Amino acid sequence: MRDPRHNILFEPLAIGPKVARNRFYQVPHCNGMGHREPTALAGMRAMKAEGGWAVICTEEVEIHPSSEVSPAIEGRIWEDKDIFAHERVVEGIHRHGALAGIELVYNGPRTNLASRLPPMGVNSMPVNSEWLEPQQSRAMDREDFRAIRRWHRNAALRARKAGYDLIYVYAGHGLTLTQQLLSRATNDRTDEYGGSLENRVRFLRELLEDTRDAVGHDCAVPLRIAVEESQLPLGLERAEMEDIVGMLAELPDLWDFCMGSWSRDSRTARFSAEGFQEPFVRGLKKLTTKPVVGVGRFTSPDAMVEQIRSGVLDFIGAARPSIADPFLPKKIEEGRSEDLRECIGCNICVAGDMQSVPLRCTQNPTMGEEWRRGWHPEKIAPKAREARVLVIGAGPAGLEAAHQLGKRGYEVALTDARDTLGGRVVRETTLPGLRTWQRVADYRLGQIGKLANVETYPASFMTADDVLAFGATHVAVATGARFRANGRGRNHPQGIPVGEGASVFTPDDIFEGAAPSGDVVVYDDDHYAIGSALAEKLAAAGCRVTLVTPAPLVSHWTHNTLEQGFIEARLVESGVAIVTRGVAAGIRKGTFAGSDGVTGRPFEIAADHVVLVASREPQLELFRSLKAREAEWADAGLESVTTIGDAHAPGMIVHATYAGHRYARELDMPVDADAVPFLRDQPR
Amino acid sequence: MRDPRHNILFEPLAIGPKVARNRFYQVPHCNGMGHREPTALAGMRAMKAEGGWAVICTEEVEIHPSSEVSPAIEGRIWEDKDIFAHERVVEGIHRHGALAGIELVYNGPRTNLASRLPPMGVNSMPVNSEWLEPQQSRAMDREDFRAIRRWHRNAALRARKAGYDLIYVYAGHGLTLTQQLLSRATNDRTDEYGGSLENRVRFLRELLEDTRDAVGHDCAVPLRIAVEESQLPLGLERAEMEDIVGMLAELPDLWDFCMGSWSRDSRTARFSAEGFQEPFVRGLKKLTTKPVVGVGRFTSPDAMVEQIRSGVLDFIGAARPSIADPFLPKKIEEGRSEDLRECIGCNICVAGDMQSVPLRCTQNPTMGEEWRRGWHPEKIAPKAREARVLVIGAGPAGLEAAHQLGKRGYEVALTDARDTLGGRVVRETTLPGLRTWQRVADYRLGQIGKLANVETYPASFMTADDVLAFGATHVAVATGARFRANGRGRNHPQGIPVGEGASVFTPDDIFEGAAPSGDVVVYDDDHYAIGSALAEKLAAAGCRVTLVTPAPLVSHWTHNTLEQGFIEARLVESGVAIVTRGVAAGIRKGTFAGSDGVTGRPFEIAADHVVLVASREPQLELFRSLKAREAEWADAGLESVTTIGDAHAPGMIVHATYAGHRYARELDMPVDADAVPFLRDQPR
Repeated sequence: MRDPRHNILFEPLAIGPKVARNRFYQVPHCNGMGHREPTALAGMRAMKAEGGWAVICTEEVEIHPSSEVSPAIEGRIWEDKDIFAHERVVEGIHRHGALAGIELVYNGPRTNLASRLPPMGVNSMPVNSEWLEPQQSRAMDREDFRAIRRWHRNAALRARKAGYDLIYVYAGHGLTLTQQLLSRATNDRTDEYGGSLENRVRFLRELLEDTRDAVGHDCAVPLRIAVEESQLPLGLERAEMEDIVGMLAELPDLWDFCMGSWSRDSRTARFSAEGFQEPFVRGLKKLTTKPVVGVGRFTSPDAMVEQIRSGVLDFIGAARPSIADPFLPKKIEEGRSEDLRECIGCNICVAGDMQSVPLRCTQNPTMGEEWRRGWHPEKIAPKAREARVLVIGAGPAGLEAAHQLGKRGYEVALTDARDTLGGRVVRETTLPGLRTWQRVADYRLGQIGKLANVETYPASFMTADDVLAFGATHVAVATGARFRANGRGRNHPQGIPVGEGASVFTPDDIFEGAAPSGDVVVYDDDHYAIGSALAEKLAAAGCRVTLVTPAPLVSHWTHNTLEQGFIEARLVESGVAIVTRGVAAGIRKGTFAGSDGVTGRPFEIAADHVVLVASREPQLELFRSLKAREAEWADAGLESVTTIGDAHAPGMIVHATYAGHRYARELDMPVDADAVPFLRDQPR
Repeated sequence: MRDPRHNILFEPLAIGPKVARNRFYQVPHCNGMGHREPTALAGMRAMKAEGGWAVICTEEVEIHPSSEVSPAIEGRIWEDKDIFAHERVVEGIHRHGALAGIELVYNGPRTNLASRLPPMGVNSMPVNSEWLEPQQSRAMDREDFRAIRRWHRNAALRARKAGYDLIYVYAGHGLTLTQQLLSRATNDRTDEYGGSLENRVRFLRELLEDTRDAVGHDCAVPLRIAVEESQLPLGLERAEMEDIVGMLAELPDLWDFCMGSWSRDSRTARFSAEGFQEPFVRGLKKLTTKPVVGVGRFTSPDAMVEQIRSGVLDFIGAARPSIADPFLPKKIEEGRSEDLRECIGCNICVAGDMQSVPLRCTQNPTMGEEWRRGWHPEKIAPKAREARVLVIGAGPAGLEAAHQLGKRGYEVALTDARDTLGGRVVRETTLPGLRTWQRVADYRLGQIGKLANVETYPASFMTADDVLAFGATHVAVATGARFRANGRGRNHPQGIPVGEGASVFTPDDIFEGAAPSGDVVVYDDDHYAIGSALAEKLAAAGCRVTLVTPAPLVSHWTHNTLEQGFIEARLVESGVAIVTRGVAAGIRKGTFAGSDGVTGRPFEIAADHVVLVASREPQLELFRSLKAREAEWADAGLESVTTIGDAHAPGMIVHATYAGHRYARELDMPVDADAVPFLRDQPR
């Protein structure tokens, strides 16, 4: 039964001519696949609509090839031929009663690496480019403004034809020409599109009027707009922002607020709390009578209600929480908040966008697999036959496998050698900023607790004898991996020489209580979260910490989660010294020796202790013992023994939950190892 | 008439059951588009076949989704459904009488970001990943080896069905499981696939035998193999290499040699000479009776003949030269070597692969546009009507426009203010390592020289009066761009403060004779070639040079041309000090002041002179004067005035030649500015 305090979330509200059935608004970004896989996109949107969302949007959709973001995956509505793919998406959304929105964008000057058309912009300046492409825009003239207005109008007409209910004008995330015109940071024009705020708002107003004129009263016309721009000198300020909202107050049918750059909008839990955008959005709603939507990684119903009650927002925008749990609204409505699979705020989803590949989610392994593998986020096929499954290791892979196998109706036993279930999650959440990762274990333990056919056995170390005596039909070995003590890894395939008397730890040693003091070097050849978080933890514990990494950037991979800059800043605040492009040469008692990756010049750093964050060794003792005794399996009733998760191939938590899920889906099912195990949109 | 010394290049030669019509072998890499745009790929391959190549290959084609390289664009032959796209490619190649080859690969452990299957490898080590993905492979077991053999065999059968003549086994470029097994650097297995060379070669031998067995005598089975691995400790050495070739000598129908890593294989002209791979390949041919192909950025017929005569190679492999000029063999055959559009060795083509976007070529603007825009590399539509075209500025854009307009039959005048035609090319080729870029001008000047309807006017500065008096129907303004003197650019949109008495130069000042001495800071906010090449030049001239860049890497963008590591090494050799993540704060007399981009800590560097390599200002004085006098155009017979190249939007030379070409193609042709100007393969 729904908690009556949450009723406000289920009130319908009009957006122009359309009525949203409740206040759950799936604000885009992180929706993956875009123009490359329209069927996959339609599939995942349909699942979300089924979850009870009122409005489901595309992410940015390009209106013309003269501003396209290849190789990034953005939707395209360049020409009438693109309507077909959008119709599939709209059908998917409408099938379950949600409204469908499309964000039309002219990105501003980009590299246009696919279209090869010259980029246009506010002025002639370097294009927005990940790799700092040596290329500039052309300063737009009046004819260009007219052309973009025409393209936007054409795109709006196509969008209406495809069936969209909401057709956006977009000025968000620092990515669009409209925002670049709004801001004194980027607009130095001296014509009617530059100078006064009235002039800088002109183009945005024109697009809003054009779009309204094009789509008439068939569709709503929302505006997504950045409410601050503190990353830029001369960026948009609060007073200006209020003026802008005041000037355009009633023109859009809905105001959709976001931050002025993507990295500051889609922040991870490590660097922001739920609702962190409230200070920037609060007070803007009173400048318009139109409804307002905003974001802030909302996952708790109470926080959502508070946003609406206190008059900050009318709709709760949530992209990442809708990825982690497409059924979030339904679960709140049905009073099942304890079933919410809460977003952990890790931005693995964002990494899919950054790496131009399909979207992944740490919490929701079915994300992106709805169409191509037919995986429903809430439903799973019942077991094909009676069987007893023993899952050994209750980390992310084991927990997910046990949960899904339980849902399939198997008799499941989940064991772990440790007292506390959760595996690596329990350990890694002891690091600063990673507390929300605990939700990976908590959600699954909560769900498993409801399943009578799943038994958990903490503090139960299993030997091969134990397993053979257990009477399981199938055994999943999810025994995880441990960091290698010799630094063997990406940059040191043969390991790092460690001299006698040198004090060297792995992250596992620290998790298990080792407490280095004095001068500590953290050598990070892993490049994700653990190296920097450990450095931060040790600095907080009073160590003098130097983080050395052979990569060009600290926590190099976190560029993809939009965390890299935040991590760097936090390390500096924490007093951690940073050495990038530093390659380990050897560790002696008291000294870490390395060489500069650019000059080859050797260096030494005083180090009472060195923490080596490199590659990991899958823990396969049990698996190997069982394989060695394969002759005894039949007598023991055992049919299969399979490694999953880090024990199979060490990776991130997202790899582990996915592996556990796949094991559970495929058990007793026909799987052809030679075939492609998913559907693809193929050009013909 | 063909030079008789070149006859050897036109002798046919058998490759297994197939006969190559001559010795021109289009060895892959840099062929772009892959699985995303099969029709485009078929189109570009057809053009190359028309150019007289004997063999045209795909680049690496994935045989199974458990080792795929998304987001990079590689071909796929994962399943029977993929045969359709390959049939299109083979048809394109066969249409003009060339043999079609396919390179089947199992890449080894990759991130598998699209398929999400766990990566397998020689051992459990971090996967090959651009962004250092925190993910490891699973160590393969016997069943895995059997599975990959089966997948390879299935792929070979599909390839035969698609019509390929040559079906490769691949162990090149450090990218494949086979190479990782061959090498002691990466293979530490203790079973029958590790240890002795015989064991390490085992899998490669099995794949060769399997493939032969699968395709029988319908197709040839070549082997592409890395001949050295000096980038790795314990990497393949010459003696081992000779043993490997000896062991497998007659098993492949063709030996195809390359270097052990891509960056060392596809080197730019800045870091290698034509034929630079000869020392690694020489002598291997005598270990087999089968024909041998190799690469080395061959563009000159004499160098090619020498490779064959001296017994180093039987076929001349050339990917990049075939991109720059798909008609290279035909032109040599027809005795038109002076018409060769020689590859300049800039690796802009490679950047397309690195950035996962369609391939571009600095020299050949039609590259990738064969199918989608219908641009033939050698043919262009005759003019639609009589007209006189004035092209002002003989840089890359102006030269290309004048050349193509001339081919279309227009009466063309090409003027330039300077004595020497070539624009930025003439200036930039004065920098160390960039001499080959001169070919951009030389080829076009040579071609223009043959056209009676194109007149060139060096040393002819044009005013608006001159233009209006000239009697042109169309004017193309290709007046280029100049570096901004105040450092305005990517990281400094408002410029860099320069104090009184400070000595600041731009690259243009240096090109025009400024010769700084003493302590010099080169501040590079351009991130391509000019900053580092200038630093190298100034160091060679005796300056004490520090290169400061706000980017994480020196010449950051050159990561995409595979040059970044080479540039860094050369700067270090040249004695240039390097400061990365250094953000300019201001320039005072004698001092460059900046701050560290990570810590914010201010720093100062003694600088008698500072060279600011930032953004550029399009040179639009003439264009603006003409626009201001639009009322006079009709009387002057003038119909259009258009900016092209750097005057339009400053970029790389590749942008300029493309812009010039597009201008010439589209003049007097119907162009709908609202339509997508090219075809696309769209999923349905």
